[in-house]
Amino acid sequence: MLPWYVADEVIQRALKEDAHYLDLSCAYLFEPAQAGRAYLLANAAGVMCGGEIFTRVFTLLDSSIEANVLVKDGGTFQTGDTLLELEGPIAVLLQGERTALNLLQHLCGVAMLTSQVVSAVEGSGALVCDTRKTLPGLRALQKYAVTCGGGRNHRFNLSDGVMLKDNHIDACGSIAQAVQRVRAKIGHMFKIEVETRNLDEVKQALAAGADVIMLDNMTVDEMREAVQYVRANEKAPVPLEASGDITLENAREIALTGVNILSLGALTHSVKAANISMRMVT
Amino acid sequence: MLPWYVADEVIQRALKEDAHYLDLSCAYLFEPAQAGRAYLLANAAGVMCGGEIFTRVFTLLDSSIEANVLVKDGGTFQTGDTLLELEGPIAVLLQGERTALNLLQHLCGVAMLTSQVVSAVEGSGALVCDTRKTLPGLRALQKYAVTCGGGRNHRFNLSDGVMLKDNHIDACGSIAQAVQRVRAKIGHMFKIEVETRNLDEVKQALAAGADVIMLDNMTVDEMREAVQYVRANEKAPVPLEASGDITLENAREIALTGVNILSLGALTHSVKAANISMRMVT
Amino acid sequence: MLPWYVADEVIQRALKEDAHYLDLSCAYLFEPAQAGRAYLLANAAGVMCGGEIFTRVFTLLDSSIEANVLVKDGGTFQTGDTLLELEGPIAVLLQGERTALNLLQHLCGVAMLTSQVVSAVEGSGALVCDTRKTLPGLRALQKYAVTCGGGRNHRFNLSDGVMLKDNHIDACGSIAQAVQRVRAKIGHMFKIEVETRNLDEVKQALAAGADVIMLDNMTVDEMREAVQYVRANEKAPVPLEASGDITLENAREIALTGVNILSLGALTHSVKAANISMRMVT
Amino acid sequence: MLPWYVADEVIQRALKEDAHYLDLSCAYLFEPAQAGRAYLLANAAGVMCGGEIFTRVFTLLDSSIEANVLVKDGGTFQTGDTLLELEGPIAVLLQGERTALNLLQHLCGVAMLTSQVVSAVEGSGALVCDTRKTLPGLRALQKYAVTCGGGRNHRFNLSDGVMLKDNHIDACGSIAQAVQRVRAKIGHMFKIEVETRNLDEVKQALAAGADVIMLDNMTVDEMREAVQYVRANEKAPVPLEASGDITLENAREIALTGVNILSLGALTHSVKAANISMRMVT
Amino acid sequence: MLPWYVADEVIQRALKEDAHYLDLSCAYLFEPAQAGRAYLLANAAGVMCGGEIFTRVFTLLDSSIEANVLVKDGGTFQTGDTLLELEGPIAVLLQGERTALNLLQHLCGVAMLTSQVVSAVEGSGALVCDTRKTLPGLRALQKYAVTCGGGRNHRFNLSDGVMLKDNHIDACGSIAQAVQRVRAKIGHMFKIEVETRNLDEVKQALAAGADVIMLDNMTVDEMREAVQYVRANEKAPVPLEASGDITLENAREIALTGVNILSLGALTHSVKAANISMRMVT
Amino acid sequence: MLPWYVADEVIQRALKEDAHYLDLSCAYLFEPAQAGRAYLLANAAGVMCGGEIFTRVFTLLDSSIEANVLVKDGGTFQTGDTLLELEGPIAVLLQGERTALNLLQHLCGVAMLTSQVVSAVEGSGALVCDTRKTLPGLRALQKYAVTCGGGRNHRFNLSDGVMLKDNHIDACGSIAQAVQRVRAKIGHMFKIEVETRNLDEVKQALAAGADVIMLDNMTVDEMREAVQYVRANEKAPVPLEASGDITLENAREIALTGVNILSLGALTHSVKAANISMRMVT
Repeated sequence: MLPWYVADEVIQRALKEDAHYLDLSCAYLFEPAQAGRAYLLANAAGVMCGGEIFTRVFTLLDSSIEANVLVKDGGTFQTGDTLLELEGPIAVLLQGERTALNLLQHLCGVAMLTSQVVSAVEGSGALVCDTRKTLPGLRALQKYAVTCGGGRNHRFNLSDGVMLKDNHIDACGSIAQAVQRVRAKIGHMFKIEVETRNLDEVKQALAAGADVIMLDNMTVDEMREAVQYVRANEKAPVPLEASGDITLENAREIALTGVNILSLGALTHSVKAANISMRMVT
Repeated sequence: MLPWYVADEVIQRALKEDAHYLDLSCAYLFEPAQAGRAYLLANAAGVMCGGEIFTRVFTLLDSSIEANVLVKDGGTFQTGDTLLELEGPIAVLLQGERTALNLLQHLCGVAMLTSQVVSAVEGSGALVCDTRKTLPGLRALQKYAVTCGGGRNHRFNLSDGVMLKDNHIDACGSIAQAVQRVRAKIGHMFKIEVETRNLDEVKQALAAGADVIMLDNMTVDEMREAVQYVRANEKAPVPLEASGDITLENAREIALTGVNILSLGALTHSVKAANISMRMVT
Repeated sequence: MLPWYVADEVIQRALKEDAHYLDLSCAYLFEPAQAGRAYLLANAAGVMCGGEIFTRVFTLLDSSIEANVLVKDGGTFQTGDTLLELEGPIAVLLQGERTALNLLQHLCGVAMLTSQVVSAVEGSGALVCDTRKTLPGLRALQKYAVTCGGGRNHRFNLSDGVMLKDNHIDACGSIAQAVQRVRAKIGHMFKIEVETRNLDEVKQALAAGADVIMLDNMTVDEMREAVQYVRANEKAPVPLEASGDITLENAREIALTGVNILSLGALTHSVKAANISMRMVT
Repeated sequence: MLPWYVADEVIQRALKEDAHYLDLSCAYLFEPAQAGRAYLLANAAGVMCGGEIFTRVFTLLDSSIEANVLVKDGGTFQTGDTLLELEGPIAVLLQGERTALNLLQHLCGVAMLTSQVVSAVEGSGALVCDTRKTLPGLRALQKYAVTCGGGRNHRFNLSDGVMLKDNHIDACGSIAQAVQRVRAKIGHMFKIEVETRNLDEVKQALAAGADVIMLDNMTVDEMREAVQYVRANEKAPVPLEASGDITLENAREIALTGVNILSLGALTHSVKAANISMRMVT
Repeated sequence: MLPWYVADEVIQRALKEDAHYLDLSCAYLFEPAQAGRAYLLANAAGVMCGGEIFTRVFTLLDSSIEANVLVKDGGTFQTGDTLLELEGPIAVLLQGERTALNLLQHLCGVAMLTSQVVSAVEGSGALVCDTRKTLPGLRALQKYAVTCGGGRNHRFNLSDGVMLKDNHIDACGSIAQAVQRVRAKIGHMFKIEVETRNLDEVKQALAAGADVIMLDNMTVDEMREAVQYVRANEKAPVPLEASGDITLENAREIALTGVNILSLGALTHSVKAANISMRMVT
Repeated sequence: MLPWYVADEVIQRALKEDAHYLDLSCAYLFEPAQAGRAYLLANAAGVMCGGEIFTRVFTLLDSSIEANVLVKDGGTFQTGDTLLELEGPIAVLLQGERTALNLLQHLCGVAMLTSQVVSAVEGSGALVCDTRKTLPGLRALQKYAVTCGGGRNHRFNLSDGVMLKDNHIDACGSIAQAVQRVRAKIGHMFKIEVETRNLDEVKQALAAGADVIMLDNMTVDEMREAVQYVRANEKAPVPLEASGDITLENAREIALTGVNILSLGALTHSVKAANISMRMVT
């Protein structure tokens, strides 16, 4: 799991964003001591992500809140399932509801989409991973959600791996030169991935000693050809990552080319909120 | 426009999130002084939102960056249009690229979807507005994007308006009692909206003196009936807000019932990133 | 009540302001474990505000502190009353004393002054409210204190309501134009208040559809005339807010003109600290 | 002057407090480019404090703002004087107005009151100083305002000097013991002040080697006696500080007892805002 | 002890610095519930500083951690001693280990070096103190460590005492003028120290009324002469502080000149980490 | 170079730490406008690191400061060299001096020590790198300084690489099991390093597919044996990292065993400040 300081920062920002001063409705309606119970209801099937984060929203508002998470992160649920239960001051339950749901619905959305792509490529041996195309301020949580959906994490940020894209390469003159410049300075724990657009660039990247080669926006045929070339010529295994407009629809075909990884920006940049609601026990 | 301190907080968080220490790729490849030029290219038609925010990402990294925004926020663009131009150190252009695009693509996505719904209800007199179903940490920017798409903003947070939902009302006993409790304490600049699920509740809300009445998850027929009842019985105009699973598809039909406002969570919780890319001038 | 994150930010800032490193006196005098008891003594009659905030100062320093609040916020007290009791490490009690008292004495001062004005206008039907003339960084707490004194809150900030002042109006050409421009963009949950300086402007504001009309720095006669005009011509009730150098002395006379609200900057910008002290039990 | 980082923190917090998202009024009324001019008008005579801070509010909102401060901090002004001039986007001038005035009016209020007390004791040789009874979050600015009014600063916080109050002393057994414990640990750059309530305690404090002696809530006669005793028995000069309910009215009489310093909590805890307003040039 | 808010800021920053997202190793290896025990082992003799801070690292990560500090801050230990014990989730113990050790090893290093210098001057009557030559962000903790080693604290920062250095004096014209300018404005709780480079400057500083005189980079003979001059001519005791390249080797000789204080930048700017390691109980 | 937001955070924290309110000395001595010039003087030979950071301290205090860096980061200097020049208000130059020097002297200390170790292993082919044994809050700057001294960076934090230490392995049962668990979840851009204590563990690590093998606290003979074993049995090159009490004295001997990397905690945890001072031009 993520350390709490990571999630807490997101949660506290969201709470402040949602009540700059006070929750007028609850402040004017309820006594602080008036207690209630609530539960989380799945209105559609999905993949769980954010149960502990959901309850954290409430405990950060009021440490007396009691919570019981029924479906663990990474688990699946069906329409009508109760995902968790809460108990505490009704004013706190109602103030936190929207903030908590906004987080949970988004994270379940990410986990669900990831899980669907993972299922689509099942048996191909290919892994599904995310990108840096995340929503500002939510990267840590989104990347966590990808793992709950069965995906893997690409690098977290620009400080933990090198990716040489076309713009980097063009500005350096060639793939060979770009890789060489980086190798001359990089630490031994970091990998270099090279983005390629065609077989010729794949050959250059392999020759230059790339640790990972990205096949960017290639056709399925081009990818297949690239896989064959690399498998035939690599000394040590060089993972091949397919990228560029991969969707739930075309994922399987791409996976079957033999690439090792499919990376999808859509897992995190175009997410549909999961249909989950909070109900009060009356 | 939003004050810079609002957007800057989002941008700086996103930059730190994307390079905890340094951009390994750029740090190892380029001299700080090596300059370049870039432009923003629309790969599909859309509605602009975030041009100044996009350039701010770069000027916060390096104040020497020069930018020229060609399409103003709220304007529309076609496939192939150049949206803005940048000039400055290539290491800065490449470090900021992803963070800036993540923001812009999301905001244009919000603006575009809003604009489509606004067009769908054109001529009906109904306004399109957002909700509190926003992505954590991004509310201010998302609500700004809604206005760029021609929509209006519902309350920003729990501190600037009262919305009495079913949970509030149930815990108070009745609509009348809930409204009364709030009226006894609320300031004169704040409005009270009451959520209703059927005509009976609409009648109660109107009788209780609600400033705004939400028709939540009603059928089109129920909404039409509610509109007729309220128009016939209101003393001063009481805006009616339709809410609950409104989509681009059903928006027009709902608008034609005579409601004043359509509010859509999807404008901000289920957004598809716009297809825009940054290119280096070579 | 305010969410803790609002008060905690003020408290933690105040604690750091008051001991950048350590409390030299206590650090050199006491063992961490040396315990003591203290109580809060009213040296004059007043209105309580900040009891829970006072004790929070100590629990944020040391979670082992025990507190017992005897007079609830909004309650009144007499000279000699004990307002609350504390128990815990003596070094913590003495380090927190000044910070806690600075907060409490100020908030009780706000509540007391408000309460006096509320009493002054009793029976007139007019409400007493605050303004944005608050002390920087203390607005949320001050506005809370106003409610403890029986007052109401005007808008919290520039984002939750529109107030068109002379400067806004002059720059737009006319009241009618200013209101129209705002109406064309504003969300349905926000009100527009128009500041007027004479009967003519009152007429313009009413005609323009202002939701609230402020009578700014008018004489009592002018206010009475404005009230009559509006009551005779309004379609729905338009609250009238008197503003400008309202004091405890002239409040009643103004209230009796029939205005609905009296707003006073002095409630928050010119506050006399309440006379309350903390005593150790020896 | 204070470093900008001190004032900026107060200003930025105040700006965010006053517009969580955007200034609805200005956002809906003006184009960003629409420019205007404003000036600051004194509606009563006073002492200036916060001219640069006032303009900083605007430049932090928009670096293009031009300002011209006409009366320097510490200077005096008369009714009708223009204190400073501003030029820039009208939306920025109007958004910043209240925040800037809230700061300036409070700081001028502190400076004015201080200046009045300083005048009251003129010729006595006594200095006027502040206390730790400051408003939370505003200590640095308030203490700066005291110096603009001709006063001096007591210790800034618990980390830069030792003050042994009755509670400290009681918990240690005696003045002698308390002073001794502190001397055994304190650095050579820090002074020890001892609070005394009668002549006997003054004698103990002097014998214990206090660097400064506070005469707390003594009568004028008691203070005179204490001064005589200390002057007759001190080896090196020991400053005597009078404290406890000192007002503009009784300050001179107290000063004439021969005490060296008068400290007043009221300089910072019970301040009346100065009457200054911002006007647009039309 | 320092208030927790001081240490917590350092700890939380260090934790975030050490795991921007998650601890990959622990996240992939362990279940959250898998528990373990650890202890802190001294690999060399030393002086304890940071026991509570060490355990705080873990409790900030996970409040369920149990800790037992065996050697109190300021105590000494021998090779092989167990300094403290921890119990809790193994993933938390391993994630916090390095951050906690980095703090503790540094603080024990400061305390050890201080303690050695204090021992070296034993019997001379001279005190050992620190300077402002601290590591950025660590001053409060380093100064606390100096006291654990038996040293005293010089001023904490530029706001709690005046030190007139050669640059200040040169820019003012003379020692006399510099002291006079400061005396005209300074509060009565603050001392003025004057840095001198030779006997002539010592005479000027004494005549100007310096509260403390620093003998900067003088030879032992010059210091002895300065001590004799000041002792013969001071009215009240004026502490003399020796400064400039004082080391463990020359400290005693300098102390025997009769100076009152030795201040060493090396206590905090050139620290060797103590040899302490954390072991898991297996 | 590091992004400014990384260094700025360290600098601003250090400035606030060093003047909670104001620099009493400068505030009481100088007019804001009084200008001066200063330069940085090397009192001993060294390696430059932090020139731009040094000047940033002053420009963050006052943007009007002019600076001219004469020796670039990574360059070397001799006793008596002028490293950079500054011009601006004397009060700003003197306030910033200590904070700026504290940073620069520490960073040059890190760079110098690194450079000495790099020289010691010259010709061996081995690289010198840092560890996570950094000073809390200074990691980014320290790791940058290591590169200025010719060293390389090990992983920045727990989120950008996996290191399986004895404690991890013991808790998992075996090297094989630990590596396998991580492989099952880790992204393709991250490497796994395994810490080994003897040849047997080296064999296990190689067999388990470790990307990097650390030889921890082995003798030179053991390391030589490990190198031979791995070179004879690796399929793709597996970097070998020597670790544990490596010093300037024994570095060469270790490097000559054929290991690829030497990592030294001492580069960052036990640093001697460089001897550099700031002088005013008079």
